[in-house]
Amino acid sequence: MLKAAIFGASGYAGQELTRLLHNHPEAEIVMLGSRSLDGHNISSSFNSMADPRAYRFEESDIRTAADRADVVFLALPHGVAAEMISPEILDSAKIIDLGADFRLRSLSDYREWYHLQHPGGSVHEEAVYGLCELYRDHIAGARLVANPGCYTTCSILSLAPLLSSSLIESDETIIIDAKSGVSGAGRAPSQPFHYPECNESIKAYKIGEHRHTPEIEQELSLASGTGIRVQFTPHLVPMNRGILISAYCRPLKPANVRTIEEAYREFYRDEPFVRIFSGDEGLPETRWVKGSNRCDIGFHLDSRTGMLIVIGAIDNLIKGAAGQAVQNMNLLYNLPETMGLTDYAIFP
Amino acid sequence: MLKAAIFGASGYAGQELTRLLHNHPEAEIVMLGSRSLDGHNISSSFNSMADPRAYRFEESDIRTAADRADVVFLALPHGVAAEMISPEILDSAKIIDLGADFRLRSLSDYREWYHLQHPGGSVHEEAVYGLCELYRDHIAGARLVANPGCYTTCSILSLAPLLSSSLIESDETIIIDAKSGVSGAGRAPSQPFHYPECNESIKAYKIGEHRHTPEIEQELSLASGTGIRVQFTPHLVPMNRGILISAYCRPLKPANVRTIEEAYREFYRDEPFVRIFSGDEGLPETRWVKGSNRCDIGFHLDSRTGMLIVIGAIDNLIKGAAGQAVQNMNLLYNLPETMGLTDYAIFP
Amino acid sequence: MLKAAIFGASGYAGQELTRLLHNHPEAEIVMLGSRSLDGHNISSSFNSMADPRAYRFEESDIRTAADRADVVFLALPHGVAAEMISPEILDSAKIIDLGADFRLRSLSDYREWYHLQHPGGSVHEEAVYGLCELYRDHIAGARLVANPGCYTTCSILSLAPLLSSSLIESDETIIIDAKSGVSGAGRAPSQPFHYPECNESIKAYKIGEHRHTPEIEQELSLASGTGIRVQFTPHLVPMNRGILISAYCRPLKPANVRTIEEAYREFYRDEPFVRIFSGDEGLPETRWVKGSNRCDIGFHLDSRTGMLIVIGAIDNLIKGAAGQAVQNMNLLYNLPETMGLTDYAIFP
Amino acid sequence: MLKAAIFGASGYAGQELTRLLHNHPEAEIVMLGSRSLDGHNISSSFNSMADPRAYRFEESDIRTAADRADVVFLALPHGVAAEMISPEILDSAKIIDLGADFRLRSLSDYREWYHLQHPGGSVHEEAVYGLCELYRDHIAGARLVANPGCYTTCSILSLAPLLSSSLIESDETIIIDAKSGVSGAGRAPSQPFHYPECNESIKAYKIGEHRHTPEIEQELSLASGTGIRVQFTPHLVPMNRGILISAYCRPLKPANVRTIEEAYREFYRDEPFVRIFSGDEGLPETRWVKGSNRCDIGFHLDSRTGMLIVIGAIDNLIKGAAGQAVQNMNLLYNLPETMGLTDYAIFP
Repeated sequence: MLKAAIFGASGYAGQELTRLLHNHPEAEIVMLGSRSLDGHNISSSFNSMADPRAYRFEESDIRTAADRADVVFLALPHGVAAEMISPEILDSAKIIDLGADFRLRSLSDYREWYHLQHPGGSVHEEAVYGLCELYRDHIAGARLVANPGCYTTCSILSLAPLLSSSLIESDETIIIDAKSGVSGAGRAPSQPFHYPECNESIKAYKIGEHRHTPEIEQELSLASGTGIRVQFTPHLVPMNRGILISAYCRPLKPANVRTIEEAYREFYRDEPFVRIFSGDEGLPETRWVKGSNRCDIGFHLDSRTGMLIVIGAIDNLIKGAAGQAVQNMNLLYNLPETMGLTDYAIFP
Repeated sequence: MLKAAIFGASGYAGQELTRLLHNHPEAEIVMLGSRSLDGHNISSSFNSMADPRAYRFEESDIRTAADRADVVFLALPHGVAAEMISPEILDSAKIIDLGADFRLRSLSDYREWYHLQHPGGSVHEEAVYGLCELYRDHIAGARLVANPGCYTTCSILSLAPLLSSSLIESDETIIIDAKSGVSGAGRAPSQPFHYPECNESIKAYKIGEHRHTPEIEQELSLASGTGIRVQFTPHLVPMNRGILISAYCRPLKPANVRTIEEAYREFYRDEPFVRIFSGDEGLPETRWVKGSNRCDIGFHLDSRTGMLIVIGAIDNLIKGAAGQAVQNMNLLYNLPETMGLTDYAIFP
Repeated sequence: MLKAAIFGASGYAGQELTRLLHNHPEAEIVMLGSRSLDGHNISSSFNSMADPRAYRFEESDIRTAADRADVVFLALPHGVAAEMISPEILDSAKIIDLGADFRLRSLSDYREWYHLQHPGGSVHEEAVYGLCELYRDHIAGARLVANPGCYTTCSILSLAPLLSSSLIESDETIIIDAKSGVSGAGRAPSQPFHYPECNESIKAYKIGEHRHTPEIEQELSLASGTGIRVQFTPHLVPMNRGILISAYCRPLKPANVRTIEEAYREFYRDEPFVRIFSGDEGLPETRWVKGSNRCDIGFHLDSRTGMLIVIGAIDNLIKGAAGQAVQNMNLLYNLPETMGLTDYAIFP
Repeated sequence: MLKAAIFGASGYAGQELTRLLHNHPEAEIVMLGSRSLDGHNISSSFNSMADPRAYRFEESDIRTAADRADVVFLALPHGVAAEMISPEILDSAKIIDLGADFRLRSLSDYREWYHLQHPGGSVHEEAVYGLCELYRDHIAGARLVANPGCYTTCSILSLAPLLSSSLIESDETIIIDAKSGVSGAGRAPSQPFHYPECNESIKAYKIGEHRHTPEIEQELSLASGTGIRVQFTPHLVPMNRGILISAYCRPLKPANVRTIEEAYREFYRDEPFVRIFSGDEGLPETRWVKGSNRCDIGFHLDSRTGMLIVIGAIDNLIKGAAGQAVQNMNLLYNLPETMGLTDYAIFP
């Protein structure tokens, strides 16, 4: 049994991770870190387990956690993990970081978007970007995995095959109009996420400034082989879970419905967590992925305008956070990639 | 034009009052009090007016407000108004207090339920309980009106006619199972009202301890002429506005569907804001009162069990707070009671 | 592997059953019955599985299903199952009926509440009421299990221990004020459940007439040893899943917080799917059971009024329907009772 | 007093129109048409008025309605109004059509998008497009007003000033990613709008095929003076009311934040129902327009990508349907344009 520790266990991503690891056949939770809830039963924060005394939060340090656990999950604010992880820690335990600190390869991008100086160094250099479908082989041998962001996962999975196959224009800005449920904003109460403020309303926010932008551009540029620019606009939707992205791009010559579908099917051949919609299968909706680790992808090629619209959907807390983290753990330890992630969507 | 001042204008009740008074043909807002937003445009707090610069919040004191305004509305936490209002203030302006400080006639009840010593005195003594349908005549000549609570308004209006007509058992505890939208919890962000915590869930809270209990008992006892005990259980419902109460009582002998309906129709004869459902008119639902100052009341006499179930519905922010405050203002100044309150429910 | 067939597979209970059985280690789905979707892939009705071509709906008859399957689940409108099941069918397959036809022992109660003549006979006589926590031993040897209703399950589990231990008054009507999410109304579109009609509103419905009433009374009377009468009031809450009941009863002499808690803990000793809240553990909320097969129960003894208020919560589609059906299947085939039901609640 | 008749009064647009006209100081409702509810009180369809017997639905014909009323509002499925309105009818009454039949100037566009042959003729020719802010002068003298669609109103108001001022590229497809509450789908129950199907989920629909597309293109082309192509993608959002559009376009040379703001402010100078956000005023959100006839518009010029993102918000049932219809009526009869439309948004 793998021994797993979680820092930031009382947030939404942390508790989803707790749920998934608790059910995982080959993992065992040995530490649930939470400074504010030190000593409290898990039920003080989320009362969803049959046995509310199953776990107790504790304030811990990374050194102790790395000694006790084989794998340490970090669900912490940005800036914290970068200071926390040293080469010595990586000698003791594998780290899966659900935060942003090791996702960007460029330290100057990090500084620009996060307004923070990153310590960099060898730890940063050895981090592997944990988008399993793209970096499966690198992840298998890694010690530090940077679990991608929620918007990011959905956006990259939806667009990488098109760029990788040179089916769309790479010179033009790709527009990603994204919509997220409120759990994406985290669990700390604040005015904009107070129930009556966001219920029965929709808004765009952080246009052109959202920190998932450079992460999407980094990965799409790598897929494309050339610098990709995206216009990323997130929206807040009155629902608990789910991300839908609607991406707009310009197809290149050989692209038609058949070549596009084939590109997707080829790119994601045998992927257990990606589903391509084609023909009369409709388009992704968040209700069909809620509770699962799946990314659903569909597209519409508009013969009138010549544009290609791609729709992607994930559960932001699973494929967009905790589920992908478990998928990464499975890869790190050579377990079947779907282990502990076989649930399909819970509807309604 | 009546000059009106509002303290606590940036909360939900305060802003609803602002909306109603802004549209009121005979009122003019001269002060919107908010300590934290002093100097900010109204749009910094609620951006729903056509002209966001229509008003500016200011930090004020009751003395200044009473000088500038004819009527001062207080939407403040309990304990504050009791200290704020002196006989001198009442010489300068009429006060409509949307808080709890002047609702309970018994100071010991206040201490027991609010865990606070009330200063009492002549100000407390002259306060009139502002449930317009019951105290219309007293309110007309008052200087200080204690605007009732939201659950309270709905509960008392739904049950007073039965007790007043001796149609139900007064010795037995009356059960009031109440359901409220989340705006009833106020606008300050906190964990239980963070969107993903209360969306898609229902819960009971403060069973047997909610502070509207003594207020309901006080008024139902007055209606009955004998001491009434209620078992009051509030529930939190994932919606913005609306209160529904389901009350369970034991009919006394002459009660039948006809006598009960007649008692209600007689009690609320010509009331513009109370609607009785009977025959095949169905039962109240909160969607039919949302946005209006109305209280809808219906009942079901169960021939199998012999029990009487009463259903009442209001918009908690209007008839349960700001609308009733305006209705009280109309009474205080001998204006038509429905002035500024003619909107019917906005659906859906 | 158990071969399982489901009739009514495209409704909410049917599809939840499909989900649970698909994940069940010892069951295999051999038939998904749906007349209207005959020949269509499962994804035409619910597109939540990774492989939308995993199953195909078919129009079948009970004879064929009973031949192909070991266990047949019926999620059909009342009246249908009663005509469908014969002793010969029961010789071929075990039946778990999620509908109402075999729940009531009294055929005249059935006629009174369902306005339908029940064929009765030996099939009706051998049916076992499938509330696992109460009838575990009977279910183990049964051929026909009447899976309880959703409101029913929550109400009986919440109150039976009190009546069984004679801790509450059995002469007085017990009040059950129940609240349900909209999936409880089924999947067929109709005006009251059209999104804008029930979103942002709460209402009571079918007061004194809901068909779960006689079922609750039957079982509470058996628990009590004397005839129990309940006043049952269901409410529709704007959320997808979840049932909360608030029950009001009168404690008898020896009852105090300790004796009540002990009665519950003793009654449900070692039950994997019942959780008792006591002390400072708060009260049940539907968010803590959504996605699980658990029933959470808590109570408040009001020293002021002398009343006992019991709160129960379940996921209406799981413990209130499909989950309990799987639990019954586990009992019928001597499998571990929790097999395939180990998920805890998905939050948020 | 203007005598007004409404066909299709029991739908969402029809009932909202009823609400607005009932409160309108210069209008009087003389006929509420509904075939299915002929003879029923208004409360049978929407129970939101204080006096449920205030109005009775009747099955009527356009001839009778035109005789009894000064102005007839049609809220009917497309294809019906085109057959209904003759020159003779227009001699008797003014018509405001909330449907699609007279919005498109090109009959072949109508045929292409609505799959229906339009009778055309003089009636079609004299119809005026009822987007008040653009066609105020034409409307004033019209007899037949084609009230614009909901998505259309929001899209055109948000983009016309930019095209009219040649501030954005007109050769490139403009992307309009639109989000609507569920009331936009009408009141007839159907599977996709059954509560549990659309609650807690978001989806795109009718990509590249939505019938508001040619209407938007027609008007933006007129504003621009050249043919404009839009990529229009509607999404369904789990809320009752509200439309938000996020439009993506390419600014032309002289455009900067100041010129764009000025173009908007100039274009909408003194408009009572359009509000421009600039500087630190944030961006439109549907909560700030719900219940009002306002269109809120904001924008973000992204210095990194060079793109211009425009955000528009309306209440789909008011500025997107019934409110604009009343605004048109005010224009037709030379009443103050804001009469009966002074409500500002109801929040929360």
